[in-house]
Amino acid sequence: MAEEVLESFRKKICAELDQVVAFWLKHSHDDHGGFFTCLGKDGEVYDDLKYVWLQGRQVWMYCRLYRSVERFHKPDILQAAKSGGEFLRSHAWVPVAGNKKCAFCLTRSGQAVKVQRSIFSECFYVMAMDELARVTEEQQYQDEAVRVMDQIVHWTQVDPSGLGRPELPGAGPTNSMAVPMMLLCLVEQLMEDRPEMAKKYNELGHWCIQQILQHVQRDGNAILETVSTDGQELPGCLGRHQNPGHALEAGWFLLQYATRHQDEKLKKLAIEKFMLLPLASGWDQQHGGLFYFLDVDGHCPTQLEWNMKLWWPHCEALIAFLMGYCETKDPNLLEKFTQLFQYTFSHFPDAVHGEWFGYLSRQGLVALDIKGGPFKGCFHVPRCLYMCEKLLDGLLGKSPLL
Amino acid sequence: MAEEVLESFRKKICAELDQVVAFWLKHSHDDHGGFFTCLGKDGEVYDDLKYVWLQGRQVWMYCRLYRSVERFHKPDILQAAKSGGEFLRSHAWVPVAGNKKCAFCLTRSGQAVKVQRSIFSECFYVMAMDELARVTEEQQYQDEAVRVMDQIVHWTQVDPSGLGRPELPGAGPTNSMAVPMMLLCLVEQLMEDRPEMAKKYNELGHWCIQQILQHVQRDGNAILETVSTDGQELPGCLGRHQNPGHALEAGWFLLQYATRHQDEKLKKLAIEKFMLLPLASGWDQQHGGLFYFLDVDGHCPTQLEWNMKLWWPHCEALIAFLMGYCETKDPNLLEKFTQLFQYTFSHFPDAVHGEWFGYLSRQGLVALDIKGGPFKGCFHVPRCLYMCEKLLDGLLGKSPLL
Repeated sequence: MAEEVLESFRKKICAELDQVVAFWLKHSHDDHGGFFTCLGKDGEVYDDLKYVWLQGRQVWMYCRLYRSVERFHKPDILQAAKSGGEFLRSHAWVPVAGNKKCAFCLTRSGQAVKVQRSIFSECFYVMAMDELARVTEEQQYQDEAVRVMDQIVHWTQVDPSGLGRPELPGAGPTNSMAVPMMLLCLVEQLMEDRPEMAKKYNELGHWCIQQILQHVQRDGNAILETVSTDGQELPGCLGRHQNPGHALEAGWFLLQYATRHQDEKLKKLAIEKFMLLPLASGWDQQHGGLFYFLDVDGHCPTQLEWNMKLWWPHCEALIAFLMGYCETKDPNLLEKFTQLFQYTFSHFPDAVHGEWFGYLSRQGLVALDIKGGPFKGCFHVPRCLYMCEKLLDGLLGKSPLL
Repeated sequence: MAEEVLESFRKKICAELDQVVAFWLKHSHDDHGGFFTCLGKDGEVYDDLKYVWLQGRQVWMYCRLYRSVERFHKPDILQAAKSGGEFLRSHAWVPVAGNKKCAFCLTRSGQAVKVQRSIFSECFYVMAMDELARVTEEQQYQDEAVRVMDQIVHWTQVDPSGLGRPELPGAGPTNSMAVPMMLLCLVEQLMEDRPEMAKKYNELGHWCIQQILQHVQRDGNAILETVSTDGQELPGCLGRHQNPGHALEAGWFLLQYATRHQDEKLKKLAIEKFMLLPLASGWDQQHGGLFYFLDVDGHCPTQLEWNMKLWWPHCEALIAFLMGYCETKDPNLLEKFTQLFQYTFSHFPDAVHGEWFGYLSRQGLVALDIKGGPFKGCFHVPRCLYMCEKLLDGLLGKSPLL
């Protein structure tokens, strides 16, 4: 019975979400504000640096759970999110060469340690502020989200000089999939249930879609991570680089957008090109799991971690295929979800200490046993479980979460 | 018979050096000047980008072989080195924020693609220019080497602002072992057989030694990669970070310096603290080989590649222990050399296409089958084999190489 299968997925996913959230509630809160993000296997803080992507993401995640899942609608979750948001507002912004940038990493007390020359710290800051606005109904948070969003759009579409990257003759501008994906995610975030924001960001959303679709290359047979600004393949490793997890994440962003716009053609494209294609090319036939990076021509990537199995591509793939199944009821997509579920749930969760391992060898052995680090925090795992629970509730005709 | 053992090492090492040099001569030369550094398993160019560290290192290596090993004293090697040097002089320097920096990466024709905010491109440029001066006897190359060396010393000891790194309140200056190691290597390079340079750089050499010795921490029981500028352990992952290959490389730099200065105390310290200690703590008891990174307290490092086995730490370790044995005749050091030789020669060389694989999994399987890439070129392998051949010649009482 299909329904029994879905119910069994739902049960496992709910339980997993509970234990994952409990892990972060127990181990990551700093009395001085903000979240510890460097957590070892058993939750111990092995470094008190605070990575800003992860501060913003955790604030977002806590707020989203608080406002959409009844069992997480609790004062301690809201309080922690607000405290994290205040930590970010007080400490994240740093003057760099005449501009203000969000730091990438802060000390425990909030002094800047590192600033990246990209937009992503600011993007996760926007996500945090916008969700905070929704749970607190305080306008100041929304104003802050929109102010920073407009700065990001300026850097992206008008003038990147404020990012601080030198212009070099051999490195022209490119279309890196991370940028329109991230902006599309923010547009969806800011627009939700807000007609005036939908109007403000409608055109940007459309632009993001066009930019993402430029990454369909090789006569529709491959997604390439970086293309020229006019949508052509770039030479060398950069041009051949593939990131299956990113393609799959873009897949569900596209599908979500297509569903909202009732765009059947885009739906089909999202599923065929951004889900089935990267799963087929990105899956390790020998050991299972999704490769982290690939070269479209089969050359060996130059990134040392290319053949590792990371948690987040598997999280994104689970969301993508379950969303695809919800939209189409195509049993093939449920089958792919099942394949991903089996690999993911048998390899990543830590049954002893909770949360998931993030970094496996190609063979599927735990290579890094940290639960949190510079790039892994309270985000991909709980977002995946939350999204899948919501999608399964829909399939099973259960009432919306909250 | 010890002599037979040494003779057998020497035979294998000479043959290996021949095939490695032949690989680069055959596959890496670009008619447009400079060297291709992105070479696949069989030597094919999979990307025509030219990484500047590797351009400088290959020029240095070719010149050094040309002037010190009779069988490499050939016009084609000299010609390729000169062409590489001219490519660097013509293209490596890029204006960045009012300063001139050496690029990190160039297009095939020499346009800058990336500039790092560190000293290392410039350091390998100096190595290249100084060796070119020695083989060509052209003063212009030596002048260029000294000019850039003085710039590096200025950045390091007087004012780092020209490097372009923003000053951040949470990230004070540190003593990163790479810097004094690299400068010591340059000092040794520039001083060789030149009394006036020996005088000029004598104090700097002494400073490098003091800076390197600050990395002996934990009551002499550990080498830490990054310490405070006053030689104290830093908090967190940064402070606990260990790079066994770097410590071993520093070991033979120190021993070379100590030998030249007939400093017995420093000799002993180099061997005990920078060779035996990192080998003991850095060796993987389970699978063999040297870990790439470790945390001194046994936490899991956050670098995804921490447990991989890279070619260069093994190259540096081979030089270190053979040099240690030459200086002391301590059979324990020859035993360690043998242990390293066995792992290295059974795992890294590619018997089919020549040269060495650079990146193995923890288990010792080839993870990346490239022969050259952004950080691997014609340097660590041939330098190791050349140094070991020279050391073995000394032990076996053979005439100097040239």
